[in-house]
Amino acid sequence: MRIYDIIYKKRNKEELTDEEINYMIQNYVSGDIPDYQMAAMLMAIFFNGMNDREISTMTNAMAHSGDIVDLSSIEGIKVDKHSTGGVGDKTTLIIAPIVAYYGVKVAKMSGRGLGHTGGTVDKMEAIPGLKTNFSQQEFFDIVNKTGISVIGQSGNLAPADKKLYALRDVTATVESIPLIAASIMSKKLAAGSDCILLDVKTGSGAFMKTLDDSISLAEKMVAIGENCGRKTVALITDMDIPLGNNIGNSLEIKEVIETLNGKGPKDLTEISIKLAGNMLYLADKGTIEECENMAKEAIQNGYAIKKLIEMVEAQGGDIEYIKNPEKFEKSKYSLELLVEDNIEGYIESMDTEGLGIASTMLGAGREKKDDIIDFSAGIILNKKVGDKIKKGDILCKLYTNNEKKIKEAKEKVISSIKFSNKEPKKIPLIFARIEKK
Amino acid sequence: MRIYDIIYKKRNKEELTDEEINYMIQNYVSGDIPDYQMAAMLMAIFFNGMNDREISTMTNAMAHSGDIVDLSSIEGIKVDKHSTGGVGDKTTLIIAPIVAYYGVKVAKMSGRGLGHTGGTVDKMEAIPGLKTNFSQQEFFDIVNKTGISVIGQSGNLAPADKKLYALRDVTATVESIPLIAASIMSKKLAAGSDCILLDVKTGSGAFMKTLDDSISLAEKMVAIGENCGRKTVALITDMDIPLGNNIGNSLEIKEVIETLNGKGPKDLTEISIKLAGNMLYLADKGTIEECENMAKEAIQNGYAIKKLIEMVEAQGGDIEYIKNPEKFEKSKYSLELLVEDNIEGYIESMDTEGLGIASTMLGAGREKKDDIIDFSAGIILNKKVGDKIKKGDILCKLYTNNEKKIKEAKEKVISSIKFSNKEPKKIPLIFARIEKK
Repeated sequence: MRIYDIIYKKRNKEELTDEEINYMIQNYVSGDIPDYQMAAMLMAIFFNGMNDREISTMTNAMAHSGDIVDLSSIEGIKVDKHSTGGVGDKTTLIIAPIVAYYGVKVAKMSGRGLGHTGGTVDKMEAIPGLKTNFSQQEFFDIVNKTGISVIGQSGNLAPADKKLYALRDVTATVESIPLIAASIMSKKLAAGSDCILLDVKTGSGAFMKTLDDSISLAEKMVAIGENCGRKTVALITDMDIPLGNNIGNSLEIKEVIETLNGKGPKDLTEISIKLAGNMLYLADKGTIEECENMAKEAIQNGYAIKKLIEMVEAQGGDIEYIKNPEKFEKSKYSLELLVEDNIEGYIESMDTEGLGIASTMLGAGREKKDDIIDFSAGIILNKKVGDKIKKGDILCKLYTNNEKKIKEAKEKVISSIKFSNKEPKKIPLIFARIEKK
Repeated sequence: MRIYDIIYKKRNKEELTDEEINYMIQNYVSGDIPDYQMAAMLMAIFFNGMNDREISTMTNAMAHSGDIVDLSSIEGIKVDKHSTGGVGDKTTLIIAPIVAYYGVKVAKMSGRGLGHTGGTVDKMEAIPGLKTNFSQQEFFDIVNKTGISVIGQSGNLAPADKKLYALRDVTATVESIPLIAASIMSKKLAAGSDCILLDVKTGSGAFMKTLDDSISLAEKMVAIGENCGRKTVALITDMDIPLGNNIGNSLEIKEVIETLNGKGPKDLTEISIKLAGNMLYLADKGTIEECENMAKEAIQNGYAIKKLIEMVEAQGGDIEYIKNPEKFEKSKYSLELLVEDNIEGYIESMDTEGLGIASTMLGAGREKKDDIIDFSAGIILNKKVGDKIKKGDILCKLYTNNEKKIKEAKEKVISSIKFSNKEPKKIPLIFARIEKK
């Protein structure tokens, strides 16, 4: 078998065999296939795509290029969840306690934020004392005890993905739906859960800007999951508007607590119930409707917030902050942005990526990998798309410990929000749900 | 400027600027752009192509990556000729003497044979004593004295092409018409002639198997030549049938001599007159018709064979072999192939590449770069496509000094020739002529 012939076939839009795909991934990871041949291959895949069988085989080979986490010592059904990333997306910390209350196990590895999107691990570290690095045994013990643990990525998961991603990043082959699907799913397969819920974001703040692309990506990922023996469902959810009102690490933890106390913003509460409902459904807890009702109940009755407290405690966090969120340290500087134009109308749109970038400017995120995060920095939105506004209304409030950055961030926020005299069309929160028939 | 952005643009089918193309070639040759980024770029060009301006700029940058031969010390108009290669193609040694007789200068660097196609330099070396490596000054002196010199490739011509070709060869990006055009034309531009005649072969023995591809390639090359200040014409000529009757080095030299003596096969004579006519036309010697008549006359009056003798002598060859071709050493072994089937009909088709491979088996060509050539080996065809045949007719004769190879070559020849009861449709010798309006 020669990689040349495999590139040639894909270039001519022929289907690759499982043997060819396994040969390609194994020999690329071992270094026997050089980067220049894999770069040509990736560009050929960019143009000619891969069918569901091809991409499932490739993803499986990528997952098996490193450690596969063995969750068998954790009892019960383990359900993982993955979001393609967005601004203000703090749902993991809301839905994991809900489903854990019902006995579904969440043994989850999460990422850190980079660029305009936040990361769950950063948000959790805003809780004083809370640790996100544990040995595998400690991680399993926490899940067995509380039903949930969310930790940072550890171990040698899917090294083929790391190597391929680095190559895609310099050869303009990142934006390929099969390659994105393989990248995400290889890590999910290696992480070892039985079921996978995918939250594919769409819109101005998402990696996928169009609904069509988001649906294509979701379909590919569901096909991969099912072909590789994992029960998989995807929801396509809106990221044209930030999720909830708070952007920034401790601000988002506060909103998580509000939501679990039944006082969260409507959009965040609704999406969280849908996501949690689908995780319960994946774990065979009932029909979708029944599962969504269970999720609502866990919030209403205070069960879910108790689970969050259990998990925070098990990971070494100070639970007084969860019980009394006013304890979270406030930033030194803040600035209210008012509607300055002499208009009466509506917010027509928000460039959600722009708001994520503004939040990063204030200190809530990283521009480079080793930047240090200011946990109290961020933005609280008082008005969102579709809200009525008039001169003098408070649009949002910026928080930071770095006074110098506030002007630049303010300008970025202002340029990200557009007004209109007409009420904009309502954007649904959830566009589609994809499950293999 | 970043190569990433240039790959991204081409991937998205956007036009590249001249600055971007020059940056890309210069930095690839210098090693600042790694192979893996260029491999992705080549595959993007494979899919999205390049327009005439882009490919002209790229070709010019490739030509200027090394030495540009300065032919200004040679008086008169210098016309180069390039064939995309085939089986039995010995036209260079027929047409160069013809045009040199009329004062058009041919200072030509030619290649060696590899695989199923022969090379002019190998054929010339079948003439005892003849040298094909000269210093640049010796080369110029021979052209100034006799009007022609044909030597092997020397100097550092278009190193960008060498580097790109090596990368295309391992990344399945050879078969891209703009990249093939740039590769050929970068060497022609560097070789320094004022005008370029391109003989683009089409059919079973050619690199381009279809007429459409051959025309596309010819159009690209003519556009590049003209955009880079060289008067350029292309003929699309048949290579579905070997050219002439003789395949193999000294056998082809004998056929060159026959043709210049007015006794050559009809197809080879006709194509040679067309090619020589177009070279004279490029050098402003008259209309196409006038120039073709001049070419005929040079053969009829014996002027052209005299020119060949002058060139052979100037390059150290023994002219007695030209005057008396019977002197060429004969191979030890030969085998006549007869029509064995009990049929009366026609030769319907010949797999010309197959005949080239059979000839290589007999010793006339190289399978690997350092194989040694048997100058007397090869094939003489007694019958060609469209000829009537019946049982017992001599089809062809095989020549070799390696008796062991004769059986394998015989089988290859037999499997390459197809018979039919019906007379096949006549294939034109010349399909098209491409000149910029």
